[in-house]
Amino acid sequence: MAAKLEADIAVVGAGIAGLVAARGLRAAGRSVAVLEARDRVGGRTLNLELDGGQAVEVGGQWVGPTQPRVLALCDELGLETFPTYSDGRNVLELAGKRSTYKGTIPRISPLVLADVRRAQRRFERLARSVPPDAPWTAPDAARLDSTTLAGWLDDNVRSERARSLFSIACGTVWGMEPGQITLLWALACASSAGGFEAMISVEGGAQQDRVVGGSQAICETIAEGLAGSLALDSPVGAIDQDGTSVTVTVSGGVVRSRRAIVAMAPDLAGRIAYDPRLAGRREQLTGRMASGALTKCTAVYERPFWRDDGLTGEALSDAGPLETTFDNSPPGEDGPGVIVGFVSGPAAAEHALLGLSERRRRVTECLERLFGEAARHPGAYHEQAWAEEAWSAGGPVCSPAPGTLTAYGDELRRPAGRVHWAGAETATTWCGYMEGAVQSGERAAGEALDAEGWRL
Amino acid sequence: MAAKLEADIAVVGAGIAGLVAARGLRAAGRSVAVLEARDRVGGRTLNLELDGGQAVEVGGQWVGPTQPRVLALCDELGLETFPTYSDGRNVLELAGKRSTYKGTIPRISPLVLADVRRAQRRFERLARSVPPDAPWTAPDAARLDSTTLAGWLDDNVRSERARSLFSIACGTVWGMEPGQITLLWALACASSAGGFEAMISVEGGAQQDRVVGGSQAICETIAEGLAGSLALDSPVGAIDQDGTSVTVTVSGGVVRSRRAIVAMAPDLAGRIAYDPRLAGRREQLTGRMASGALTKCTAVYERPFWRDDGLTGEALSDAGPLETTFDNSPPGEDGPGVIVGFVSGPAAAEHALLGLSERRRRVTECLERLFGEAARHPGAYHEQAWAEEAWSAGGPVCSPAPGTLTAYGDELRRPAGRVHWAGAETATTWCGYMEGAVQSGERAAGEALDAEGWRL
Repeated sequence: MAAKLEADIAVVGAGIAGLVAARGLRAAGRSVAVLEARDRVGGRTLNLELDGGQAVEVGGQWVGPTQPRVLALCDELGLETFPTYSDGRNVLELAGKRSTYKGTIPRISPLVLADVRRAQRRFERLARSVPPDAPWTAPDAARLDSTTLAGWLDDNVRSERARSLFSIACGTVWGMEPGQITLLWALACASSAGGFEAMISVEGGAQQDRVVGGSQAICETIAEGLAGSLALDSPVGAIDQDGTSVTVTVSGGVVRSRRAIVAMAPDLAGRIAYDPRLAGRREQLTGRMASGALTKCTAVYERPFWRDDGLTGEALSDAGPLETTFDNSPPGEDGPGVIVGFVSGPAAAEHALLGLSERRRRVTECLERLFGEAARHPGAYHEQAWAEEAWSAGGPVCSPAPGTLTAYGDELRRPAGRVHWAGAETATTWCGYMEGAVQSGERAAGEALDAEGWRL
Repeated sequence: MAAKLEADIAVVGAGIAGLVAARGLRAAGRSVAVLEARDRVGGRTLNLELDGGQAVEVGGQWVGPTQPRVLALCDELGLETFPTYSDGRNVLELAGKRSTYKGTIPRISPLVLADVRRAQRRFERLARSVPPDAPWTAPDAARLDSTTLAGWLDDNVRSERARSLFSIACGTVWGMEPGQITLLWALACASSAGGFEAMISVEGGAQQDRVVGGSQAICETIAEGLAGSLALDSPVGAIDQDGTSVTVTVSGGVVRSRRAIVAMAPDLAGRIAYDPRLAGRREQLTGRMASGALTKCTAVYERPFWRDDGLTGEALSDAGPLETTFDNSPPGEDGPGVIVGFVSGPAAAEHALLGLSERRRRVTECLERLFGEAARHPGAYHEQAWAEEAWSAGGPVCSPAPGTLTAYGDELRRPAGRVHWAGAETATTWCGYMEGAVQSGERAAGEALDAEGWRL
């Protein structure tokens, strides 16, 4: 980047939140400088280009019918969506037994099913008591925030199998084991999404639709409109501010602006050197938030053969290494068949220690158990290990440790002077999702405009 | 510092751990380069010079009879110790009532006392089941690691007053509320210290003695012997390694060495840019460890007037802002009287938002309630807010979030190629204490020497 840049607003991070903020500021007539540490835009969204040229997603990818902001954004950007393939039966591998089922509820013994349903009902009821914009004001917030999801499951789930199902959901949604996540945060996320059911469902839920061309196209398309105002390979080391301006330092240059919007996961935002230093409360908040671990394994086949067997490609497994899978084929009938599978939490970090051929062997073995012999030899295999990325430090989302939301949660969105905070974790709707990222970028841009009296 | 330095071993951090490591390496005939981000040595130990020239401590300070390494080190360095003043009665302010008592056990109702004793007995018994060098191998480790101390107190303490006493101890020891700390870590620390009783006691315990000249003298004295090998104001930004050497980058220069010892709190160690990048498991560990918040308030009086009233200067209060106090006067009879008081956890971070005069007003009001009218007007007042320090990010210790020790705990001391880890949190004896820092520095130096075949 140029040695010295000037802009009305500096935006740190070219994921969805940062780019939506930059786009909004530009639409309001302001100049922006967007600084991105990676060599690409997209943040936690990332496309993988298949040999045939089609794109599939290896980062955040799905959109759902109750996510109006990201759907409207796609529309404005000329991006189309298409339904996640879900025609047929899902596969369940639990306690050594494989079965298939239709819809969201696995086919398990009536006792286990009743157990799951009762616990989920209780969880949904609790979630409704947690205001997504201020979870720390929920009734009994201190207790909810000093309990892990594992502790809550101990008290609310009777069967080992029901517990396994919740653990799998927890891993996929937060990249953590239930013992690593505080109940209050899990409830707040669910509350912000309109319920846990909406988070884990395909039809009618968060996994209903996909973006044609892959979700990274959202960022790529916005970035095209920002040409000249966006610098890649520009990790921000320091943000200094005084009463009138902000100076953002990257290797080899500085950007002077009136305000800055930091659109990063809170843990990474906490690693920047701020001068004057941020309040200890903000430092305690970001120090106590950490990204989960999530690896997306992509297996590419000539055809989506599972569809011929009446299977959706969706699966749950407690044997692993894949905990969940989805049909992630490009749109259209005659393209390749793609399965994406998740490894999460400590298992993902362990998995990363193995060599690629061993990882591939374990994953394809798992796919064979789930979808049959045809899954044994994918034509291509790819892993995206978000916890092994310097500019992610994990995924899919950054979550607070127990006792953090109640003590420091109000710092999540509180501007630090001329520095504003965006990112999916700061959202009050679909917190941690692309929809939340869009909301956060719009909010932060609005804050900056209002603070300068620039609102149109 | 010089633009380019060479040394056998680079040591990052000039607290006790780093300096003990450097001293050991020098004693074994190796050259060292110690790089310290602050403008002083001492890490989390820090002296405050009183008007009369005497030093009192505003950081880690006490040593106890079961801490042989730090005692031997003081001895070798020519530093003397003296007993913490403890002649008389302690003050307890609980649920609006002030009382006094002798020894470790407050004078509370027999019911509350029985409650405290039963819970402590259970805690001590559990702690004995946790191996301090591998807490993740404890029986039922997963459950202990997915439970917060608050959750455990819910099940093991009946009275609100007993709970208050444990909360105060938790704040002083870890800088956290019980809802912020995982039970397994609390147990592991206690186990490493030979029991919780030893951690919280003056006579026979961790607070028995002090260092003449203040505890920072330990680091200052070692540093004198390292002149020319120590660079202050040198925050390390990057550590690169290949198969034969390590390059440590600070602003304005690099140090080339065979190996590096990083002697920092794990959260801060995690902010350095490593190339090659550390394994995701290590990143997950440091991302999930965070320092507590602790502020040490020092009130200086002409004389230790409380002694005339038969008081030790030690107090516990659930009304705050001070949760605990100690007589922190310099040695000798006719010096000034000094009280040091602790504000911890979220309360410390809140306290820091107030102006100094308001903070002083609240603290001296508290001291007056505890020690009488003579406490109202200290001649000098000082606060050391460790959570407001850039190169501490909190204190007194950095603790893992739930589910971290069991998933990633073995990364605490595992070298990353040519990079070794020291610091009080990596200790297997008196984890989090000065004694532990000494052990960790000795261990890391030994690892580096052994790995190079340099052991004498």
